[in-house]
Amino acid sequence: MPGKSNPFAVGLGFANVDLERLARQGVPEVVYGAGKTAGQIAEILNTLRRVGQSPVLVTRLDAEKAATVAERVGPDFTYLPEGRLGRLGAPRPVGGLGTIAIVTGGTSDQPVAEEAALTAETLGNEVVRIYDVGVAGLHRLLSRVDDLRSASVVIAVAGMEGALASVVGGLVAAPVIAVPTSVGYGAAFDGLAALLAMLNSCSAGVSVVNIDNGFGAGFLASRINHMGTAR
Amino acid sequence: MPGKSNPFAVGLGFANVDLERLARQGVPEVVYGAGKTAGQIAEILNTLRRVGQSPVLVTRLDAEKAATVAERVGPDFTYLPEGRLGRLGAPRPVGGLGTIAIVTGGTSDQPVAEEAALTAETLGNEVVRIYDVGVAGLHRLLSRVDDLRSASVVIAVAGMEGALASVVGGLVAAPVIAVPTSVGYGAAFDGLAALLAMLNSCSAGVSVVNIDNGFGAGFLASRINHMGTAR
Amino acid sequence: MPGKSNPFAVGLGFANVDLERLARQGVPEVVYGAGKTAGQIAEILNTLRRVGQSPVLVTRLDAEKAATVAERVGPDFTYLPEGRLGRLGAPRPVGGLGTIAIVTGGTSDQPVAEEAALTAETLGNEVVRIYDVGVAGLHRLLSRVDDLRSASVVIAVAGMEGALASVVGGLVAAPVIAVPTSVGYGAAFDGLAALLAMLNSCSAGVSVVNIDNGFGAGFLASRINHMGTAR
Amino acid sequence: MPGKSNPFAVGLGFANVDLERLARQGVPEVVYGAGKTAGQIAEILNTLRRVGQSPVLVTRLDAEKAATVAERVGPDFTYLPEGRLGRLGAPRPVGGLGTIAIVTGGTSDQPVAEEAALTAETLGNEVVRIYDVGVAGLHRLLSRVDDLRSASVVIAVAGMEGALASVVGGLVAAPVIAVPTSVGYGAAFDGLAALLAMLNSCSAGVSVVNIDNGFGAGFLASRINHMGTAR
Amino acid sequence: MPGKSNPFAVGLGFANVDLERLARQGVPEVVYGAGKTAGQIAEILNTLRRVGQSPVLVTRLDAEKAATVAERVGPDFTYLPEGRLGRLGAPRPVGGLGTIAIVTGGTSDQPVAEEAALTAETLGNEVVRIYDVGVAGLHRLLSRVDDLRSASVVIAVAGMEGALASVVGGLVAAPVIAVPTSVGYGAAFDGLAALLAMLNSCSAGVSVVNIDNGFGAGFLASRINHMGTAR
Amino acid sequence: MPGKSNPFAVGLGFANVDLERLARQGVPEVVYGAGKTAGQIAEILNTLRRVGQSPVLVTRLDAEKAATVAERVGPDFTYLPEGRLGRLGAPRPVGGLGTIAIVTGGTSDQPVAEEAALTAETLGNEVVRIYDVGVAGLHRLLSRVDDLRSASVVIAVAGMEGALASVVGGLVAAPVIAVPTSVGYGAAFDGLAALLAMLNSCSAGVSVVNIDNGFGAGFLASRINHMGTAR
Amino acid sequence: MPGKSNPFAVGLGFANVDLERLARQGVPEVVYGAGKTAGQIAEILNTLRRVGQSPVLVTRLDAEKAATVAERVGPDFTYLPEGRLGRLGAPRPVGGLGTIAIVTGGTSDQPVAEEAALTAETLGNEVVRIYDVGVAGLHRLLSRVDDLRSASVVIAVAGMEGALASVVGGLVAAPVIAVPTSVGYGAAFDGLAALLAMLNSCSAGVSVVNIDNGFGAGFLASRINHMGTAR
Amino acid sequence: MPGKSNPFAVGLGFANVDLERLARQGVPEVVYGAGKTAGQIAEILNTLRRVGQSPVLVTRLDAEKAATVAERVGPDFTYLPEGRLGRLGAPRPVGGLGTIAIVTGGTSDQPVAEEAALTAETLGNEVVRIYDVGVAGLHRLLSRVDDLRSASVVIAVAGMEGALASVVGGLVAAPVIAVPTSVGYGAAFDGLAALLAMLNSCSAGVSVVNIDNGFGAGFLASRINHMGTAR
Repeated sequence: MPGKSNPFAVGLGFANVDLERLARQGVPEVVYGAGKTAGQIAEILNTLRRVGQSPVLVTRLDAEKAATVAERVGPDFTYLPEGRLGRLGAPRPVGGLGTIAIVTGGTSDQPVAEEAALTAETLGNEVVRIYDVGVAGLHRLLSRVDDLRSASVVIAVAGMEGALASVVGGLVAAPVIAVPTSVGYGAAFDGLAALLAMLNSCSAGVSVVNIDNGFGAGFLASRINHMGTAR
Repeated sequence: MPGKSNPFAVGLGFANVDLERLARQGVPEVVYGAGKTAGQIAEILNTLRRVGQSPVLVTRLDAEKAATVAERVGPDFTYLPEGRLGRLGAPRPVGGLGTIAIVTGGTSDQPVAEEAALTAETLGNEVVRIYDVGVAGLHRLLSRVDDLRSASVVIAVAGMEGALASVVGGLVAAPVIAVPTSVGYGAAFDGLAALLAMLNSCSAGVSVVNIDNGFGAGFLASRINHMGTAR
Repeated sequence: MPGKSNPFAVGLGFANVDLERLARQGVPEVVYGAGKTAGQIAEILNTLRRVGQSPVLVTRLDAEKAATVAERVGPDFTYLPEGRLGRLGAPRPVGGLGTIAIVTGGTSDQPVAEEAALTAETLGNEVVRIYDVGVAGLHRLLSRVDDLRSASVVIAVAGMEGALASVVGGLVAAPVIAVPTSVGYGAAFDGLAALLAMLNSCSAGVSVVNIDNGFGAGFLASRINHMGTAR
Repeated sequence: MPGKSNPFAVGLGFANVDLERLARQGVPEVVYGAGKTAGQIAEILNTLRRVGQSPVLVTRLDAEKAATVAERVGPDFTYLPEGRLGRLGAPRPVGGLGTIAIVTGGTSDQPVAEEAALTAETLGNEVVRIYDVGVAGLHRLLSRVDDLRSASVVIAVAGMEGALASVVGGLVAAPVIAVPTSVGYGAAFDGLAALLAMLNSCSAGVSVVNIDNGFGAGFLASRINHMGTAR
Repeated sequence: MPGKSNPFAVGLGFANVDLERLARQGVPEVVYGAGKTAGQIAEILNTLRRVGQSPVLVTRLDAEKAATVAERVGPDFTYLPEGRLGRLGAPRPVGGLGTIAIVTGGTSDQPVAEEAALTAETLGNEVVRIYDVGVAGLHRLLSRVDDLRSASVVIAVAGMEGALASVVGGLVAAPVIAVPTSVGYGAAFDGLAALLAMLNSCSAGVSVVNIDNGFGAGFLASRINHMGTAR
Repeated sequence: MPGKSNPFAVGLGFANVDLERLARQGVPEVVYGAGKTAGQIAEILNTLRRVGQSPVLVTRLDAEKAATVAERVGPDFTYLPEGRLGRLGAPRPVGGLGTIAIVTGGTSDQPVAEEAALTAETLGNEVVRIYDVGVAGLHRLLSRVDDLRSASVVIAVAGMEGALASVVGGLVAAPVIAVPTSVGYGAAFDGLAALLAMLNSCSAGVSVVNIDNGFGAGFLASRINHMGTAR
Repeated sequence: MPGKSNPFAVGLGFANVDLERLARQGVPEVVYGAGKTAGQIAEILNTLRRVGQSPVLVTRLDAEKAATVAERVGPDFTYLPEGRLGRLGAPRPVGGLGTIAIVTGGTSDQPVAEEAALTAETLGNEVVRIYDVGVAGLHRLLSRVDDLRSASVVIAVAGMEGALASVVGGLVAAPVIAVPTSVGYGAAFDGLAALLAMLNSCSAGVSVVNIDNGFGAGFLASRINHMGTAR
Repeated sequence: MPGKSNPFAVGLGFANVDLERLARQGVPEVVYGAGKTAGQIAEILNTLRRVGQSPVLVTRLDAEKAATVAERVGPDFTYLPEGRLGRLGAPRPVGGLGTIAIVTGGTSDQPVAEEAALTAETLGNEVVRIYDVGVAGLHRLLSRVDDLRSASVVIAVAGMEGALASVVGGLVAAPVIAVPTSVGYGAAFDGLAALLAMLNSCSAGVSVVNIDNGFGAGFLASRINHMGTAR
């Protein structure tokens, strides 16, 4: 497979880098870092840079791997530890229809929320963080209702019972992307409780991504926030 | 087994009626109606009346069976169709520390809520019904916050994502009994989503009973509402 | 509760009709028809009409109930049997950024797809139906790729293994809303297989709603398609 | 968010400390220690102390983190290793309607039971410990029946098959709070077996909290034990 | 396949009747009635009678099918409606080491218990029925402890939380066969809760058969009760 | 969509008939009958006949629908009730490398086995039926071992514990296709137990299809049996 | 609780040692080693020795803990590493009706099988080990059929698909105790596949214990093997 | 058991080596390395070599164990780290009907794919690797369609949503063996999502093996690829 000529993909032996995604979907390839070595990630990034794709995100990247990647890729690679993200190139300039509000239930949901926030910022969005406003203390959420209502898209990040998505969904007219997290214990079943709750939300306008998938939420929110604008 | 002499139980062949529960637990036997014929239920009620137990509740009793039971037991048997309950004898006089507030997410949760409400009323409690105040329209719930906060015990009844329990739990200082219902479809999995959500409630002071178990919630709420009072 | 004065909700005894949702969220109350009698639905619709809300949708409404509702509500109530929907009032005029494409895997997914399509049309969107293009015969889908790529939002409806969402997600730059259906047997587990597959989609830009929740997908698609436009 | 003026919450950047919970619910904020650093916990405790909240509990706190917290918070912070709890300030004086009995099935359930016991003691309750009285040796439980029956509230802590809750529920007239534990192996499925058993208890008056949630049980027991008394 | 000569099996086209089981296992073929027509069952019974096997049991046989079978097989076929069993031939004479005690949690468990009891009686055992002695009213069970302790084998039949098996297991020195039943609702999940509880029993000497498998329990109990005796 | 010109698919409004599958995969379209009306099925069959595809199978077709289809399609439509299959056109002539052996555990597995057998026969294979040879009476299976070993492909059909697949897998050198069935009750969980068992088969050379998917097994067996032969 | 006078239990603070189990059930207390420290185990053993109970087993005991226990208890404590068991005192003399055969599917099931074997030997039984005879190579099992058929009780230990229990159950007339093991990967789900398979065994006379519960199987087998003999 | 004379198996105490599998199934014993020590593996390999079996594969063998095995077995033992496989003896010469194509969704699926590839190569097949062609970038797969269509058998290896199997199944006329992998997170549930998706594939001709079971897929593919050829 390596060396096989292919106009829209470069085969690296271990990976088949998609060169036309930028054209096809308006975004470059995103690298899922969990199952790859630092060397593989660096090689993919260097390949993508060569064909002019930027910015490129690497998700689920721990600090140790990131250090090796940084060495091999160079100064235009940045590590964002709050969201376990690596970024090749500069973020896009801020644009879109409005802000993306990111709401969390508790402090432990923050790494997932930051994965979403930094993804959205990289893709050129202004993000408003509304953290630790779980429904057990409703007033904390209600005091931020203006920020919520002025957003174009809302991302609701919560573990445990995941009630935040329904409550937020009832407060706003914007699309709500719910991200269940694996925060909790016992009958939380590593995020299953929050996932099921969010899928059954009684609020219309809510859709759900995979457990702990902050990247997916940030990416989709950016897409929606850029609806009808030139990309 | 029938005829076997036993000071605290009467064997009817198909059932072993517990005669000392009134003394032991302050409440008479409760008859689970789902797996019994009308004839069996009537015989159990007549036995319990003979030893002076009253009131006695029959749960999960449909209207058809209830008619037959009524015929065989007599005028002190009442059918309460909203809660699918039969009652032998008069309700106890209203007492307890305060009111029991029963909150529901939606119209479809009402039969379970009524099972709880009528159970609590039978056992001598004043019940305040706060129905159809799901978290998707938070203002409906918030407008009843005074009723909620003045209750001694709160029962939160909800299907789908079950978020109501957490929100209510954060608003009150009273014990909250959460009842998941089988209302919903798809990933609601017949009440599993609501059950898991309620077990993971981020609000302290919430405990949970079985899916659709309105009786259990009403019974427990009555117990708590009579704490420290003469029974 | 009935008769209780409340500026933003009317209590009907069995339901608490939300009168300010139009203002708060840009859409009127939606009535979940499954757990309500025809009489209750009619009364809710008449109440909402009185305060000027229109159009109003009733979901999961069977033909028999719909006939009774139609009688009690009058000629501005329409039944849409393909999507098991009732509608009070006229659809909104077509608007939004572009079209909403609705893609299905097979013929059996059509009722869910129609629930989505008719919801979106009621809310003022142009819908393009691309039905029975499951991934086992990929050319059927690929022959419609222009329709897909010109849409503002795509709804992917599929049961069984739910692979359609990932394939569609890789073909378009628009947000994709995935709707798992309960079509299938055995290890489909009533839609669970498709639900899990869609949540794990390797394509970015995909989010998921509840199994068989065509309404939710249509509603959310409309919201996204009206981003940045006056509502 | 930090610095944002808010009369009832102080934003620390990573957390949004709830200052009015004492007024609203009669108890101060409780800190879930599992997902926070020692530094974050210390900062939250110092903030809560500044506004006069005491006592404050930190749950799921390991000994190592606790040592750091103790250093930064000072001598009014106490670590209670049996229940993995940290406590700021002195316990409330003992009060309430009566005792709280805590029953366990086996030695391995003890850490969860202690979390409940120390929580209840911190909140001003007298606790009676009845440990290692699993139903396989019924006489051990029956020999303590007087202690059980004289309690105001009973907490039943058990893993494996969780039968203890039903047996205890049948012996007492007080509310029973059942805590499934993750003790066991194989088909115990980390507490699921005990959880399901407890939810299906054939004894009335039993409600359930999350697996291993000793804190929740102790907190709720205290609430019930203080019913009708001045707090 | 029909007509194929085979010394130890007779092929009927739809079934392959095992003629040597009596020699191999000391018991004749048992016919699982649920998936067969009355005609098929009758033909199998007539075949088994021809080769001298008796008694033969047919499980999960409803009354309607039984009537047809009786017509086609003749007077040595008996229908036992309490256990949904058909029997060809006379029961074996009572023998074995002692009695088999069958204990149930509630009235609804009785059909499963009778399937076990009638199976054991057919295979030549004396059965002692101890019904409706669920652990919520422990004294009912304790009053029968002599009957329990004098049995050679105990069968514990219970739905809901299945706690009966553990309690009985702690009271006796005989082997205990636990039969979970599908009695219950909600989180009973059609017998799963009781099944898991029984598998995790903290009492040694307990083993478990499938949900509602009264036949299997009765058959195994008979085997154990005839240990060391001539069969 | 109907009327849309497309060289390899004919849109019927409700279905998108795949006309090139014969060329692409060597087999014509197969119609999943469960979710379609008799009218839809007839129209699809008539379309496929028009373009020369034959034979065509309709799966999961009940007798009533089949009668209507037969009327509208004509005499070259045959209904095969043992396998709930409809067939347009004549079976292909028998060919392939050898026989396909189909083995079942019990009488109740027969409908699924016949779906497989009739599918394989339609596609031009000789089928050997080895029915009701469950592993509880191993000699029945062992007496047919020559038939098993002389087959090119073996299909093992079993419900309950699904052990048949492993035992057969250890006896033969041919590929084994395992079909779990929904036969059983209780912890069989509608075929889940057999499915999991078959996926974990300790015998190499075994692969698995969906629960009750006789068609899939017969189709795949035919493919394998025609390996290296002209199709 | 420590020091509390109780004729049939000694409270150690952390444990409530059952002193009358020997009388009640013919066997002394068994100590579940997994959740206890070496110190606790030693103290329990010393207490039991003081009241004359012997032999006593400690299950799930790793080598490191065992060394400490041995030091504190003395030379009559033996560690049996193959079964992760500790034993206080000498095994009982061999007795019972006959042998206990223990059959395993593969080498990895051996630790669980040894737990069963050593338990049974400790309780005075002759054990015949028939290891690594999984059903994929049936002849290995069939070559040992005489050993199997001459046993009084058979224990079948298997992971993966657990088919061994059904095959063995069909070969013998003795009671079969099935032990699912957590051997396997993927869809074995830590023993769930084997557990479900064994519960659904089509062979009569099979009952099941918890996953990996070798002790329970050995204990129950001993009970059955001593039926009708003086204990 | 060791030393027991047996013409078709050699008992090593811990294992019962199957000597006749080569004759019975055309392949030698395969050793599951996960649950065995290096010493046990070496002894089994030496035994199999003594009776002339070659090649022999050892699956799930880590590098450390492999080093010890190599020392004890000698130079005809090879370790293949990409597939965690050990091999005794030389691969069989390449034969069969054609090639085996192995397709993966992403880089992380590669170890499972290599287990399949190296197994198939050892058993004498030509393998074509088509890696990292997940359905999110369909063109990468479509560009390899000639390689796919010219294969005799296709193995589709994918985690996450497992859609690859259905898409590939629709493109080829060869049998497709689907291997779900445990790649993914959250609602992937360690391969369950991909497993269910593959079992529900809407493409005919697809069968499934256990999660991560590359060996099973490679073995079965080799069997099918050698259909009708001399082995």
